[in-house]
Amino acid sequence: MPATETGPPVRELPAQEVLVRARALIEPVLQVSVDSLGDALRRMAGYHLGWWDAAGTPTPGASGKALRPALTLTAATVCGGDAAEAVPAAAAVELLHNFSLVHDDVMDEDPLRRGRRTVWSVWGVTNAILLGDAFHALSVGVLSTRLPGHVTAEAITWLQKTALELCRGQYDDCAFENRPQVGIDDYIAMAMGKTGALMGCACALGALCVGADTATISDMDFFGRELGLAFQFVDDVIGICGDPAVSGKPVGSDLRSRKKTLPVVAALESGTDAAVELAALYRSTEPLTSDQVERAADLVHQAGGLDLALHCARHRLTAAMQVLPAHATAEDLQQLARLVTLRDR
Amino acid sequence: MPATETGPPVRELPAQEVLVRARALIEPVLQVSVDSLGDALRRMAGYHLGWWDAAGTPTPGASGKALRPALTLTAATVCGGDAAEAVPAAAAVELLHNFSLVHDDVMDEDPLRRGRRTVWSVWGVTNAILLGDAFHALSVGVLSTRLPGHVTAEAITWLQKTALELCRGQYDDCAFENRPQVGIDDYIAMAMGKTGALMGCACALGALCVGADTATISDMDFFGRELGLAFQFVDDVIGICGDPAVSGKPVGSDLRSRKKTLPVVAALESGTDAAVELAALYRSTEPLTSDQVERAADLVHQAGGLDLALHCARHRLTAAMQVLPAHATAEDLQQLARLVTLRDR
Repeated sequence: MPATETGPPVRELPAQEVLVRARALIEPVLQVSVDSLGDALRRMAGYHLGWWDAAGTPTPGASGKALRPALTLTAATVCGGDAAEAVPAAAAVELLHNFSLVHDDVMDEDPLRRGRRTVWSVWGVTNAILLGDAFHALSVGVLSTRLPGHVTAEAITWLQKTALELCRGQYDDCAFENRPQVGIDDYIAMAMGKTGALMGCACALGALCVGADTATISDMDFFGRELGLAFQFVDDVIGICGDPAVSGKPVGSDLRSRKKTLPVVAALESGTDAAVELAALYRSTEPLTSDQVERAADLVHQAGGLDLALHCARHRLTAAMQVLPAHATAEDLQQLARLVTLRDR
Repeated sequence: MPATETGPPVRELPAQEVLVRARALIEPVLQVSVDSLGDALRRMAGYHLGWWDAAGTPTPGASGKALRPALTLTAATVCGGDAAEAVPAAAAVELLHNFSLVHDDVMDEDPLRRGRRTVWSVWGVTNAILLGDAFHALSVGVLSTRLPGHVTAEAITWLQKTALELCRGQYDDCAFENRPQVGIDDYIAMAMGKTGALMGCACALGALCVGADTATISDMDFFGRELGLAFQFVDDVIGICGDPAVSGKPVGSDLRSRKKTLPVVAALESGTDAAVELAALYRSTEPLTSDQVERAADLVHQAGGLDLALHCARHRLTAAMQVLPAHATAEDLQQLARLVTLRDR
């Protein structure tokens, strides 16, 4: 099987510092937002964000990557502004991301996220629906209360359109489960809604907050969307052959739940013998054994699914890079883009 | 048992015309919003709003009451403005209301609403979560795209605070199920979040959109909140002794699911023999038989729970009326308020 990396392992790029800085900048905004919730929802919110365990005991280092806020802040500087102007937008994007994570975990019945139990699996479906709703409202509220008046309406319009794209993408993703055939184009349209739209929004809002013109905002949206697709395709590969100790996901979890991710869709469309055997495994309704999960991973590889997904990721990454301005400030966005795609979790 | 009416039956008040006009004014905005969804979510949205059945065949007359939009539009005129200026706010409030209805139905596992199957019971929990999320986003989007710039941020801030209050109210409502004792004050705080906040928001946004001053906006919020509580208390009484053919709810459904509504909470706190017997029925975990549901309704009545709830409703209605200005334009709001509380469904 190919390594998920498209180059040497990348651990301590400067991009990591960009992420750490982004988290430090948005954390105070997130804290004020989460503190505005009642005790019970606040407890769940901080748990989900990795701040503490289910009992409320602090858990340093368990937070997410802050990739989307980093994109917002970096896009702001690439567009010639000050990252500080984009902090509310960065926080709003992170809150919207978490809205979708909490609800998606309910819909997908995922018991684990980043190696920790998901909110619904600790506190039940009702509380997870409410927490997601609260993250959604907090996200909007950060923009309506913290942005300067002349950008508020446009930023919120962008955010709510993105929320609708997230819904559409998640709808498609769930609908794929019951569809006998899913084409590569269908898959990419779904991934654009589910992953591309929010990364596009993250970058566009960074540009918008520092007064970029419409063409630049649109370029930043394109950059984020293409990067988002690359990110998703790499994620799909990791979901099949990633190391559970690194990815925090059970081995072959996407295959076990018969998810139609890009490598699988591509493999099923390959017209190979492996495709026929894989289709049979995906058609059956019995739970897959561990041997069958391993066999499915081999089949996806043999049918060229993993290679195609990594090829698509590289292609999207290249497209993303091409819209960036040539000047030196674009370097941070390039670094972030590489970090997103040259990763193993 | 007392009639749920606090006066003679009210069927064709001028307030009914206010509701019809409100629906006619917001419907085009709702339609554009719903049409912006993908096919599947659009189908579910129109079904939920009563526009068509699950197969997409139009069902004239199945829409909701449009009470909240009517409050927004009427508040705008009471504050000396033109109702047309408040149409986006009225539509946004209606969309936010439907966001909470769709999600609440999932959490409460309610199979019916207005005599029709709920979205989750037709299309499953995943789709109902997504539809609620979409209504939430559409609600925000109507404000961010259709209001004049100088009120957008404040209106959206109000809307998202209301969304958080809805979450808190629903959280409390669900948490009450597992709490051995719920006091009247606890119940009223929950109802303020679940019902009062959105009616307050409806009225406040009407005032805000026509340029009312802060004190007037605050009065309108108070009016809506008190009216919302009156509405909820009457709803609770109907949930116990309303006619299913009129209310569209199964007979005694709140009692059957052992909901701790105001009449029940008041009855349990009454210190009467009926309270002891009612507490025993509520403590058991067996499903209640129809005879037991009927017995529970009698006990709530004997313990004075129904009378107390109706008394509280009248008290809140009086408080609401007192903040209205003395001039003639307030008449429509008074009519609406009476319609809300002098009703049998």
